[in-house]
Amino acid sequence: MLKTSERIDGIASSPIRKLAPLADSAKAKGVKVYHLNIGQPDIRTPQVALDALKHIDRTVLEYSPSQGFLSLREKIASYYAGYGMDYTPEQIMVTAGASEAVLFSFIACLDPGDEIITTDPTYANYIAFAEAAGVRVRTILTGIEDRFALPPVGEFEKMITPATKAVLVCNPGNPSGSLYTGEEMQMLADIVRRHDLFLFSDEVYREFVYDGAEFISAGSLAGVDKNVVIIDSFSKRYSECGIRIGAVITKNVSVIEGVLKLGQARLSPPLLGQIVAEASCSAGREYIEPVIKEYDRRRRVLVDGLNAIPGVITSEPKGAFYVMARLPVDDSDRFCAWCLSDFEYEGETVMMAPASGFYVTPGAGRQEVRMAYVLETKSLERAVFLLSKALEKYRSL
Amino acid sequence: MLKTSERIDGIASSPIRKLAPLADSAKAKGVKVYHLNIGQPDIRTPQVALDALKHIDRTVLEYSPSQGFLSLREKIASYYAGYGMDYTPEQIMVTAGASEAVLFSFIACLDPGDEIITTDPTYANYIAFAEAAGVRVRTILTGIEDRFALPPVGEFEKMITPATKAVLVCNPGNPSGSLYTGEEMQMLADIVRRHDLFLFSDEVYREFVYDGAEFISAGSLAGVDKNVVIIDSFSKRYSECGIRIGAVITKNVSVIEGVLKLGQARLSPPLLGQIVAEASCSAGREYIEPVIKEYDRRRRVLVDGLNAIPGVITSEPKGAFYVMARLPVDDSDRFCAWCLSDFEYEGETVMMAPASGFYVTPGAGRQEVRMAYVLETKSLERAVFLLSKALEKYRSL
Repeated sequence: MLKTSERIDGIASSPIRKLAPLADSAKAKGVKVYHLNIGQPDIRTPQVALDALKHIDRTVLEYSPSQGFLSLREKIASYYAGYGMDYTPEQIMVTAGASEAVLFSFIACLDPGDEIITTDPTYANYIAFAEAAGVRVRTILTGIEDRFALPPVGEFEKMITPATKAVLVCNPGNPSGSLYTGEEMQMLADIVRRHDLFLFSDEVYREFVYDGAEFISAGSLAGVDKNVVIIDSFSKRYSECGIRIGAVITKNVSVIEGVLKLGQARLSPPLLGQIVAEASCSAGREYIEPVIKEYDRRRRVLVDGLNAIPGVITSEPKGAFYVMARLPVDDSDRFCAWCLSDFEYEGETVMMAPASGFYVTPGAGRQEVRMAYVLETKSLERAVFLLSKALEKYRSL
Repeated sequence: MLKTSERIDGIASSPIRKLAPLADSAKAKGVKVYHLNIGQPDIRTPQVALDALKHIDRTVLEYSPSQGFLSLREKIASYYAGYGMDYTPEQIMVTAGASEAVLFSFIACLDPGDEIITTDPTYANYIAFAEAAGVRVRTILTGIEDRFALPPVGEFEKMITPATKAVLVCNPGNPSGSLYTGEEMQMLADIVRRHDLFLFSDEVYREFVYDGAEFISAGSLAGVDKNVVIIDSFSKRYSECGIRIGAVITKNVSVIEGVLKLGQARLSPPLLGQIVAEASCSAGREYIEPVIKEYDRRRRVLVDGLNAIPGVITSEPKGAFYVMARLPVDDSDRFCAWCLSDFEYEGETVMMAPASGFYVTPGAGRQEVRMAYVLETKSLERAVFLLSKALEKYRSL
């Protein structure tokens, strides 16, 4: 009789969570596991940020303003100015990571029963936040063959119902590694303007673009100032996922007032994280450029390595630090579990994220896995080698 | 057409927010404002916690486990053992402050349309979180005359409908300063057991009880293990509101699994805050006892001072660090604003929180204000004096 909520039942357990005990068992048996399954960078946090942490000389670790320190919001505004976007500190609310930014944006913009359209595969936690907010995510399937490009406008039009209130994109994409072109972004702008929809644009991987491609922010689209709600985070940019500092950024006054009401209810974003985040802004391009070069090297090692394995198809990622790969296996959930429970080569194995955790469409991406290239190149080479050995053995079973 | 959510419309702006610009104007004119309106303690954070912050030697500020570090959850379990309650680390989820604990508990336990019963006045942010979760708060009026004691069981029974899923209490109480007796807590236990309701018990002020009164945790009630969900926080206990570390604590496996699903979606509670929180546990009673004595002194100064002002009625607070007072004025919203906009005595004035921000029942508590005794005694004495002068002048207008 005492039952928890149905919306919690609607949140699927991530397949990675199911694999975790298998990884623990493998490690307990002395097997070394290469983690391609997680997006936790091994890159050093900027020294200037670590120094700022050391020099905190407060004696009362008190609340900060609900919208975040003005000095931090000014730094964020300057950073956006560097991308040619003119946001004022009043158009920025600091949140506990991009996660809180997503949840608060959903709650502030949407009512229970409203619908969000996004692409499939998608970042799994969007689904959890949508369930939490009582709203529904409807997806349009995209494919590894065309690098998870945005579907044509007609596909969006077909999905729009009176309940549709928003389009959501992650660009550069997790898990897809896709990067939307100017034409794709313009198509999104046209759709949200034509149908009066919010455009939630998660741009936490903004810096991580490769091959000289250009990143087009939703914030730079003309004529949709009221529609666009940018989700941002310091986590990946400065390799400081644990500080939990993100932001909601929008020129829509009602939205910023709405998220601020929620922000006031939760009193304050993390004080210590804000101090670290603000200092990180001083690290600037000098810090980020070598980091991007390093990720690019890793991307090449991983993608080239995967492409050299017979039967493996990858989507050449243009952004973020993930690659989706289709493997010559029946079911990637089963294969990823088998790699941990039944396989080892010279005492080592590999852990990958089955794509089933990212697809909403039942059965889609059944042969696919997501791999994060957040390990150094030598480890990535070894991981790819182990995968090739695992595939050989699995297919001979 | 592009409209934000109706639930956000349902969140009232706090009257304190409306007063903030008046306080800013007063300060700009050189008027000193004594802040009795906020719950930000001026007490020093434990030295052991500040030291731990100084000694963080990580070079990657990475994610922590979604449920919080095991070492921190073990410390929390030990702390509860000190109160005679046996919680395991698996029954504890670390959150970004009590705020996230409240929001996640509401979402995990309740579906849109469900109802929570609580007392009036209530902690205003509960209403915001309920709106965010799409659930409704229904209140039972309590009064300053009987120290905001729990209403008799019949009042609860009258409020319970098929939509009722939970009872919510804040004990010791913000804003009321009330502390529930063993009989009152037993009555709550009987109600939630009889009607299969969750009992959300916000106990963030647990340490702050006075006059030798005994604090009875919902976690110590027999026979309601599955019903009780404790909301806790390090903020007030160790004067570290800015670290944003709280917890959901329950023996109900479905609830802890539900909040953990939400916790996994938001990836990680604040890393730095957890390190500070864990160190704070070592400060123990040696830190807290002098703090409680100091609050008790402040309480006496404030309450005795208020009681000496003709026409002022207080509810003798037994816990937390707030006192509700009824003032001889027509409307406390207007009076509090007037204190900032039109009054000063020797270049000083006082800022209080109008009780309208805490009452859900329209018109209730119209003459009441909430005052926090988080200033040192000398400042409190002066603030009370200024209030008496303000009342004199206001009543002669």
